[in-house]
Amino acid sequence: MDIRELVESKARAAREAAATLALCPTRLKNEALLQMARGLAEKTPQILEANRVDLERARTRGHPRAFLDRLTLTDGRVEEMAHGLRQIAALADPVGKTVETWRRPNGLEISRVRVPLGVIGFVYESRPNVTADAAGLCLKSGNAVVLRGGSEAIESNTMIAAVLAKSVEKVGAPADAIQFIDNPDRAGVTALLNLPQYLDLVIPRGGEEFVRMVSERSRVPVLKHDKGLVHIFVDASADVAMAVEVTDNAKTHRPGVCNAVETLLVHRDIAPRFLLALAKRLGTAGVELRGCPRTLAIVPTARPAVETDWDTEFLDLILAVKVVDDLDEAIRHIRRHGSGLAEAIVTADLRQARRFTREVDAAAVLVNASTRLVDGNQFGMGAEMGISTSRLHARGPVGVEELTTTKFVVLGDGQVRE
Amino acid sequence: MDIRELVESKARAAREAAATLALCPTRLKNEALLQMARGLAEKTPQILEANRVDLERARTRGHPRAFLDRLTLTDGRVEEMAHGLRQIAALADPVGKTVETWRRPNGLEISRVRVPLGVIGFVYESRPNVTADAAGLCLKSGNAVVLRGGSEAIESNTMIAAVLAKSVEKVGAPADAIQFIDNPDRAGVTALLNLPQYLDLVIPRGGEEFVRMVSERSRVPVLKHDKGLVHIFVDASADVAMAVEVTDNAKTHRPGVCNAVETLLVHRDIAPRFLLALAKRLGTAGVELRGCPRTLAIVPTARPAVETDWDTEFLDLILAVKVVDDLDEAIRHIRRHGSGLAEAIVTADLRQARRFTREVDAAAVLVNASTRLVDGNQFGMGAEMGISTSRLHARGPVGVEELTTTKFVVLGDGQVRE
Repeated sequence: MDIRELVESKARAAREAAATLALCPTRLKNEALLQMARGLAEKTPQILEANRVDLERARTRGHPRAFLDRLTLTDGRVEEMAHGLRQIAALADPVGKTVETWRRPNGLEISRVRVPLGVIGFVYESRPNVTADAAGLCLKSGNAVVLRGGSEAIESNTMIAAVLAKSVEKVGAPADAIQFIDNPDRAGVTALLNLPQYLDLVIPRGGEEFVRMVSERSRVPVLKHDKGLVHIFVDASADVAMAVEVTDNAKTHRPGVCNAVETLLVHRDIAPRFLLALAKRLGTAGVELRGCPRTLAIVPTARPAVETDWDTEFLDLILAVKVVDDLDEAIRHIRRHGSGLAEAIVTADLRQARRFTREVDAAAVLVNASTRLVDGNQFGMGAEMGISTSRLHARGPVGVEELTTTKFVVLGDGQVRE
Repeated sequence: MDIRELVESKARAAREAAATLALCPTRLKNEALLQMARGLAEKTPQILEANRVDLERARTRGHPRAFLDRLTLTDGRVEEMAHGLRQIAALADPVGKTVETWRRPNGLEISRVRVPLGVIGFVYESRPNVTADAAGLCLKSGNAVVLRGGSEAIESNTMIAAVLAKSVEKVGAPADAIQFIDNPDRAGVTALLNLPQYLDLVIPRGGEEFVRMVSERSRVPVLKHDKGLVHIFVDASADVAMAVEVTDNAKTHRPGVCNAVETLLVHRDIAPRFLLALAKRLGTAGVELRGCPRTLAIVPTARPAVETDWDTEFLDLILAVKVVDDLDEAIRHIRRHGSGLAEAIVTADLRQARRFTREVDAAAVLVNASTRLVDGNQFGMGAEMGISTSRLHARGPVGVEELTTTKFVVLGDGQVRE
């Protein structure tokens, strides 16, 4: 079968399964999730064996150590995947939830009720654990999913997806609701993006180029996971110790992810005190500072920033630093360079906080908190498919509720339109 | 200037105005809406004069009378447009509304707050009054809009849009927030659909072919207004008088719109009683019935239905009628032929009502109520841009709230990620 036919047959099977899954009772979906967790535990040796094949190929291709680390599965990591599925089973079922109900003057009772989106295409370049997370979140929200992982993890992902689908079947839920495209050909992605008749949504997760390619080519609606060019603005009134804590956490907690800070904007009045304290702390953590001229005057050990640094998602222990005159300059800088994912201010001044949260437009704006907290789990929304930078449908962490749509249910006793 | 440059310059101007409009206080937006209403009233002679040019051209092109009727503006119709704008001014401002707020164990306070989508492209084939509605709804929700109406109403629309933008300017709000493409060239639509850098959303409104063309070509996210292939299922337990009322209203109240019923499904047990009563009522109203063989056995005056009738949006005084064995057959028929806009059941049986509302998937499912009630105003949501059949972002009537997105506002006192 050629790759287009293969992808189409899987998408069609998912569409058929979706109709059944949408009406599955919560209990059956939770049983499926728990069985998926058990399946992963039982098949750990086979999963690790498949992973070894991926690792060997990656090594011969000369991938860097950090890449190999992310690709590597262990007993512990497979158990984490299983644990994630058990956590998803414990989440409230979003399907059937009534969002609001009201009564009209003519006695009509109108409700908005959550229903699954249908079929979701998930195309990702990430580590193999994402396969289990995505399948679990889609199943819980009553959606069928067509998974297409990166070619480097193809053996691991194929094995994991097979175990998951088998587990779904075992409890009597529709196994076709979890489809995996086990052909690493890039044409498979293109084929998937051209099936609006079977897919309701495509979620891409990966590098900037990859996400752009998917967004531009897709005939299916896309929920984007764009890059995170994240700023923190340290206001004149900020508590220096707090500003150092928050910046340190936002930069060093996990520098390779989208909600890590990339550019620090500092009010000129606090710059001398704050930047010296920060440089000391971040120096210990091995962070390279790239500063504007005013920053360099305070921290001579910093490297001079170049123009492109303000638009670079370093995803590394590098922080661009700019001293600004006031909040207005900070907001202008963020409007020009921000990617709309997360933006933070550290301030003690209520008026500045209110202006920042109102005038800065991003999926999340934070006051006196680390941008690393922008995350489904941290927000209390449960596991997430990622963080959407789209403006439509879902903006910010995408959890099980964001994988649903609503329908209006209207109850009457013979009302007609006058 | 060529059409692509023209459209791009208007979209760019809208994008710049959007940033200002997003932060406009409610009072200023409402002043603008009231001034827009006054502007229409004051410039009625000029608007009617422009409309005469459109009408003359339409007549020489031999458009049918119904088309000319819809195109015609009168003093009364312009006053209706102004009244619509005053009603939009009276709506609650969706921008800044907090959807929900919660506190995390670490003391973080998280809110979801409504903000404008940004710039909306509205491409429509409808009557000129839609221009004022769309401009008003976008302005109220803090969005800039690029309007592109049908070529038949180009003179009327150009005049109306100019009056509206002038009125916005008069109160000191950003006049560039209302852009109108006054070039009837179809290439203007294509140009607009290729500006994802300036537009956040495109809403097409018009015939089936037109909406499909826009959806397929657009690189900007689309909120679809698809056709309405709407069913009513009359269950065995239905109150016959109620079923006749509801069906009559859904078919004859305004047959040319998307929420009018097109196919009637009738439980075999109630078919003899109900269909005779219905045929009598609808006969008086001049409705042509196209029946399945079992329908014809009861109502011999009906025309035999052909297979394509089950997939036809008549938009006319024609109703396809099919007798079915039970609810399951009705649901199967709806799944196969429905367009997902509105579906209704008439029943006295709670269990059937619950099954229908759960198992039928549409933007709106109704029990014992006319499908003509699926409408923003009837639902109490205020004026609408139309009724979305998309699953993402907004499903059903699209009012001012549906023209917004949300951002997370996170307030802390130094929280970091552990």
